[in-house]
Amino acid sequence: MRLRNKPWAKPLIAANPQWVITSPNEYRGKWQDRFPRKQPLYIEIGMGKGRFIIEMAQKHPEFNFIGIEMQTVATGIVLKKQLEVQLPNLQLICANGANLSEYFANSEVAGIYLNFSDPWPKKRQAKRRLTYKSFLSQYQQVLQVKGHLEFKTDNRGLFEYSLVSLNEYGMKFDKVWLDLHASPDIEQNTMTEYEEKFSAKGQPIYKIEAHF
Amino acid sequence: MRLRNKPWAKPLIAANPQWVITSPNEYRGKWQDRFPRKQPLYIEIGMGKGRFIIEMAQKHPEFNFIGIEMQTVATGIVLKKQLEVQLPNLQLICANGANLSEYFANSEVAGIYLNFSDPWPKKRQAKRRLTYKSFLSQYQQVLQVKGHLEFKTDNRGLFEYSLVSLNEYGMKFDKVWLDLHASPDIEQNTMTEYEEKFSAKGQPIYKIEAHF
Repeated sequence: MRLRNKPWAKPLIAANPQWVITSPNEYRGKWQDRFPRKQPLYIEIGMGKGRFIIEMAQKHPEFNFIGIEMQTVATGIVLKKQLEVQLPNLQLICANGANLSEYFANSEVAGIYLNFSDPWPKKRQAKRRLTYKSFLSQYQQVLQVKGHLEFKTDNRGLFEYSLVSLNEYGMKFDKVWLDLHASPDIEQNTMTEYEEKFSAKGQPIYKIEAHF
Repeated sequence: MRLRNKPWAKPLIAANPQWVITSPNEYRGKWQDRFPRKQPLYIEIGMGKGRFIIEMAQKHPEFNFIGIEMQTVATGIVLKKQLEVQLPNLQLICANGANLSEYFANSEVAGIYLNFSDPWPKKRQAKRRLTYKSFLSQYQQVLQVKGHLEFKTDNRGLFEYSLVSLNEYGMKFDKVWLDLHASPDIEQNTMTEYEEKFSAKGQPIYKIEAHF
């Protein structure tokens, strides 16, 4: 998702360091200090416009959440929403998820969400996919023992690739959905903006929960 | 698939021991003797009416094939076809696939095909699914090192289950297709009777290739 430039985004982010971190390396191992309560920390890599992470933070006051997004404009949009709802258990990071293990200490994270990540469909782009082995290796580092990865996508090619990649890496599959919206588990599902759009068209949404 | 009884099936099978084996334990470790040429042996568990295994045997004279089917009527139908085409590289077994390791010696088999197996959808029936761990353990025994399992189904629940079961067993995924008939690999695909029917309705066909 590439968004039209919004000139207000960058200054808004700069004016709200209590909600958005742009130099996450400084908080490595100390993220709990950013929240009023010390509680399990869940992160979303590529939060887009933030519907998922905001709803998760609202539904689960017993957990802390961090939404990570590389794009300034998207982060600005999420920040605007957060300024309205002021969720104490939600923090935002505007930085590249590819450096995850520089942002989080070993075992600092209880769970990772990947939602509708860029499919990078060409073979030579495989290294950029968020389920490529170099990413999995960072997830393994920052995740607690028994910490889970949850990955949703509507992109068939990316999901086919990811099943093979996670399996090859040695991850254990907890559950797989090949049409999440046709499953009884949909009741517990928190949607992203994309998901609403694509599932409304009748396209299947794929999901996997797995751990290291 | 349960077929209407055909009174001719049993006597036809009994009259053609050169093509159909009903006591496969006797040939354990000696299956190559049943073929004119010693060459890699591929087996299908649950061949149904046999379209797949017959076509495979026709396409690949460089391999030997055995179709296994528990139902007498289905086996009789395949035998009728084989009596017409007389493929020297195809043998049939009428017996329960659940006892596979009694029929084949360790490493006697180069590859295993499972096509549109019974989904056994109820949780308590999981043990009967051909991708349940007790079956996987037998496949592992009879398969050569690097021998492959190829599994196709239109049943979403069975495929979701199988991805988790194969992963949990420690199998390595070579490739996954979530809509085989939309993939370029369809050119090499050999269809079963079921597959033609279901894919014509536009339902996705799922496939996995994996090894131990």
